[in-house]
Amino acid sequence: MSATKSPIVDIHTHVYPPSYIELLRSRSSIPYIRSFPPSTDLRLVILPAEDTESTSRGRPVGAEYYDINEKIKFMDTHSIDISVISLANPWLDWVPQDEAAKAAQQINDEVNSECEKFPGRLFAFGTLPLSGGAAAIAQEIKRLKGLRYMRGVILGTTGLGKGLDDPELVPVFQALHDVQMPVFLHPHYGLPGSVWGERAGEYGHVLPLALGFPLETTIAVTRMILSGVFERVPGLQMILAHSGGTLPFLAGRIESCIEHDAHLKAEGKLGKGRKTVWDVLKKNIYLDAVVYSEVGLEAAIQASGEDRVMFGTDHPFFPPLEEEDSKWASVETNYIAIKGALGAGDEAKGALGGNAIRVLNLA
Amino acid sequence: MSATKSPIVDIHTHVYPPSYIELLRSRSSIPYIRSFPPSTDLRLVILPAEDTESTSRGRPVGAEYYDINEKIKFMDTHSIDISVISLANPWLDWVPQDEAAKAAQQINDEVNSECEKFPGRLFAFGTLPLSGGAAAIAQEIKRLKGLRYMRGVILGTTGLGKGLDDPELVPVFQALHDVQMPVFLHPHYGLPGSVWGERAGEYGHVLPLALGFPLETTIAVTRMILSGVFERVPGLQMILAHSGGTLPFLAGRIESCIEHDAHLKAEGKLGKGRKTVWDVLKKNIYLDAVVYSEVGLEAAIQASGEDRVMFGTDHPFFPPLEEEDSKWASVETNYIAIKGALGAGDEAKGALGGNAIRVLNLA
Repeated sequence: MSATKSPIVDIHTHVYPPSYIELLRSRSSIPYIRSFPPSTDLRLVILPAEDTESTSRGRPVGAEYYDINEKIKFMDTHSIDISVISLANPWLDWVPQDEAAKAAQQINDEVNSECEKFPGRLFAFGTLPLSGGAAAIAQEIKRLKGLRYMRGVILGTTGLGKGLDDPELVPVFQALHDVQMPVFLHPHYGLPGSVWGERAGEYGHVLPLALGFPLETTIAVTRMILSGVFERVPGLQMILAHSGGTLPFLAGRIESCIEHDAHLKAEGKLGKGRKTVWDVLKKNIYLDAVVYSEVGLEAAIQASGEDRVMFGTDHPFFPPLEEEDSKWASVETNYIAIKGALGAGDEAKGALGGNAIRVLNLA
Repeated sequence: MSATKSPIVDIHTHVYPPSYIELLRSRSSIPYIRSFPPSTDLRLVILPAEDTESTSRGRPVGAEYYDINEKIKFMDTHSIDISVISLANPWLDWVPQDEAAKAAQQINDEVNSECEKFPGRLFAFGTLPLSGGAAAIAQEIKRLKGLRYMRGVILGTTGLGKGLDDPELVPVFQALHDVQMPVFLHPHYGLPGSVWGERAGEYGHVLPLALGFPLETTIAVTRMILSGVFERVPGLQMILAHSGGTLPFLAGRIESCIEHDAHLKAEGKLGKGRKTVWDVLKKNIYLDAVVYSEVGLEAAIQASGEDRVMFGTDHPFFPPLEEEDSKWASVETNYIAIKGALGAGDEAKGALGGNAIRVLNLA
């Protein structure tokens, strides 16, 4: 890093360490990695909508998925100084209870070791053994705190099987808060396939990826708000993928619906002590800047704060369709959005890296 | 209207004309109106999530639902000069084929007559007999054009049963375009109940109303874009309820997912002639300003244009929970958002009424 340039940090960038690739190759239903004869190329299929004959099945698994040198190469091409890598979805959601703790340890150790190979350039979010039971989860949170490059955990929307508004998850959020580890909330399951209609197969992966993912995140975090998680763990820090799904745009409507709900009023859930959606956005939530437009990013900044948005790429997803491209359009679009919303000067430094360095203690 | 004040137009305001109330009272499953003993008060139940013992069942049906004098009183209280009234969801989606044409005629005539009682203050969006077959729909579109106060149609997301990306709906969109009637797209069905989780009953109506509605609209219009409706009927004019659901915020992501989709590329659907999501937002779409926040409204304005957003209230829904309130907080919130985004001067005149007067020819 030169002294004159502010550091750029990518907080939304995924890895498939070799032990995770092995786990996926051992499976015969989604999520899985396999070849589809006559081709011998390995393909990764992670979404139900991808697992049909009518669309390209999954995506090719190239070195950019598992080789950390490819991550560094990608960072260099895109002027990224630091990446906070995280295991890609669906993490360990599907691992049997008695294998979860070991799988999480192995993967977290492996990810931490990869960071070690490039000191100062890589940090990571860990993965919890959610199916392994409360003791295994608590144990892994403590262990993660001891791993040098871990700076939080990545979490899907399933929780222990009942979503993130499950009361049994509150101790997990409390434990994460106690060790000052933020939660990077990331979607995976999207929405039930019926909502995309009969013609969904014609639209490739667009509907589940463009809409299913952000809507899943929005629903998950709204359920957390309604269940009172942010009153019970007032210091909980969440980083929401894809600029919060749609939370910045819908915050006003959610808040209005809460304030006009006769049931919530009758239950005494309005009024004193309630954190509004805006309170949560400004005190508990950080947003990545992976929203692909200035319109979206400005809404994210207005909703949460200029000091609470963080650049990201979603690498290795959304590569260029044309192989000859060296810079990825998906990444450039997010750079352009930051420049559009915050300018090219000092005001953009926080979103580009300063916020992540401060919040995740990357110095 | 005084000469010094710019007119205020409410384009999102619903009515339940007496003939529609009668239709709903004749039913025994949602949507329906009935009393729940021991109370004799009539209640309207329109959403599956409302039809359970665990939440207040539906909502009381007061005069504000069916008495047009109450609409005028509400307009006067909130400084609204003109309202463009529309039948509330779920319209005639559930009416048997042989009754649809007659029901639509009766309701449209009745709504037009109500406008006649207050010349210059009321206009309307008509309702199509979607279950009545192509001839009935075409016939009613022509008839609507002849009704003095009709300025477009309100449409749900079901279409002819297969959604708005159904190729059989293209002639309907073409016919509406030919008579220059915009489509006011409005949600009703939300999302499958499973996405709200086990605790949904504790949260009143918040999740289906705050998230289900806007997400349904977003999905519907994205399916229209992907199916090529806006290339086939390039002049089609849509007004999207609730500031487009979440379309302004997600437009960048949708556009990025389209541009990175290998299936769409292989099918030759990228490149030449394709309208981008942004093209559609700026050429085919108008957005109401019913988004309850400055953050959301600014995104709507940036995405579609200052000359394409239109004030609305969603009356008679979201009344104050405290009876003594004379002005409705839900309405004031949307006024404040307009003032915040556009100021109190001339710049706000379009959003407050000028745009609606121009686009819907209300002069």
